[in-house]
Amino acid sequence: MRYELYYWTGIQGRGEFVRLALEDAGASYVDVAREKGDGVMAAFLEGEHEGAPPFAPPFLKAGRLVIAQTANILQYLGPRLGLVSDSESGRIYAHQLELTISDIVAEVHDSHHPVAGGLYYADQKAEAKRRAADLRRTRLPKFLGYFEHVLQRGGGRHPLRRHSYVDLSLFQLMSGLDYAFPRAMRRLSPKLPQLTTLRQRVAQRPNIAAYLQSPRRLAFNEDGIFRHYPELDDPA
Amino acid sequence: MRYELYYWTGIQGRGEFVRLALEDAGASYVDVAREKGDGVMAAFLEGEHEGAPPFAPPFLKAGRLVIAQTANILQYLGPRLGLVSDSESGRIYAHQLELTISDIVAEVHDSHHPVAGGLYYADQKAEAKRRAADLRRTRLPKFLGYFEHVLQRGGGRHPLRRHSYVDLSLFQLMSGLDYAFPRAMRRLSPKLPQLTTLRQRVAQRPNIAAYLQSPRRLAFNEDGIFRHYPELDDPA
Repeated sequence: MRYELYYWTGIQGRGEFVRLALEDAGASYVDVAREKGDGVMAAFLEGEHEGAPPFAPPFLKAGRLVIAQTANILQYLGPRLGLVSDSESGRIYAHQLELTISDIVAEVHDSHHPVAGGLYYADQKAEAKRRAADLRRTRLPKFLGYFEHVLQRGGGRHPLRRHSYVDLSLFQLMSGLDYAFPRAMRRLSPKLPQLTTLRQRVAQRPNIAAYLQSPRRLAFNEDGIFRHYPELDDPA
Repeated sequence: MRYELYYWTGIQGRGEFVRLALEDAGASYVDVAREKGDGVMAAFLEGEHEGAPPFAPPFLKAGRLVIAQTANILQYLGPRLGLVSDSESGRIYAHQLELTISDIVAEVHDSHHPVAGGLYYADQKAEAKRRAADLRRTRLPKFLGYFEHVLQRGGGRHPLRRHSYVDLSLFQLMSGLDYAFPRAMRRLSPKLPQLTTLRQRVAQRPNIAAYLQSPRRLAFNEDGIFRHYPELDDPA
């Protein structure tokens, strides 16, 4: 199966969680918009195509199936790429964790766009400062503390009892947070030893290490979800 | 199977999406916190129990399984309650739609709490006015227009080609929005004929009609997700 991934060019964004799974597994895939431009997604988003209409990118074309929603795509790919447990309970748990990652990713996005995704950051900077302060002080400790607990419960190495797409997504979450909020993450990291180790371990997986060195891995930037605005981080 | 639903007492909240599925199917279930108090959830949320740790309510106990995340619970219950298609593609699509409903529900929540869930509404009213204006003018038309399109594509009656838990969740979404934003919904409804009809049709399903009349259906209120603050609605 040659998968077709559709996601905005120019940012890692939510597409990156899917990309990491495809790369780690060495799957055959095309990053369609990067080859043909963002316009190639219009027909899907306007419902003028075969298959289920996505609300937004990322979406994956797998044969005749069109699958949208990041966590839904990973749930589909998991067993096909060998990136989840064989048991039903393991798959349900993996998906639950992935949906919780989606929730904190959405909160990170809203920390720089608390009023409206369609407005510039500069037009909601005052609100962003209040929201980002709550994210750093309340929400990140709560979510990351939960994932740390989940890792301890799994024996320290993995949230499940084996490598899975959840490890890859936690790597991406930790990487993005370190980029966006380096000072806050330095403050929080002593309480997150397992997450810190997991991130390093994932980065050393051969296919991931090769991917991170490749031009396919875009740099984090201020058009994506994880943005480095120093005024939103802990005070220096 | 006697299911155990765990969710905060006093509000419909996200638990209501699960409750509607259980009620529509006439499933055997206990609404545990309503019988024993919110404290019964603490052991789960602190990870001191058997099974996967939930990040937050709602979660469902099904035998030894503990399943969290609303859409994940519905995905699990769907085939067991006869509330989703038999085909894999139908199930993936149903889940995708449910996740998109979760997204707009989170945006509705943030329209009255754009800065922090832990702060009072009164402490973020100015920000809420800006965010709610964008929700009413940009986000609701986009999401509801998408679901209207999805209904048309399904033939008008259902998003899938049959009744499913997605119908029930769209009923809840439309009901909550009518409660929270009556003026905005009056403005938007002429463009949403299929969603309006679906909402009426679901309300007339015998088990749902009986549930809505029962004391188990709490009224919408200003502690829940859908809150009626007139200053956040369209101007009179």
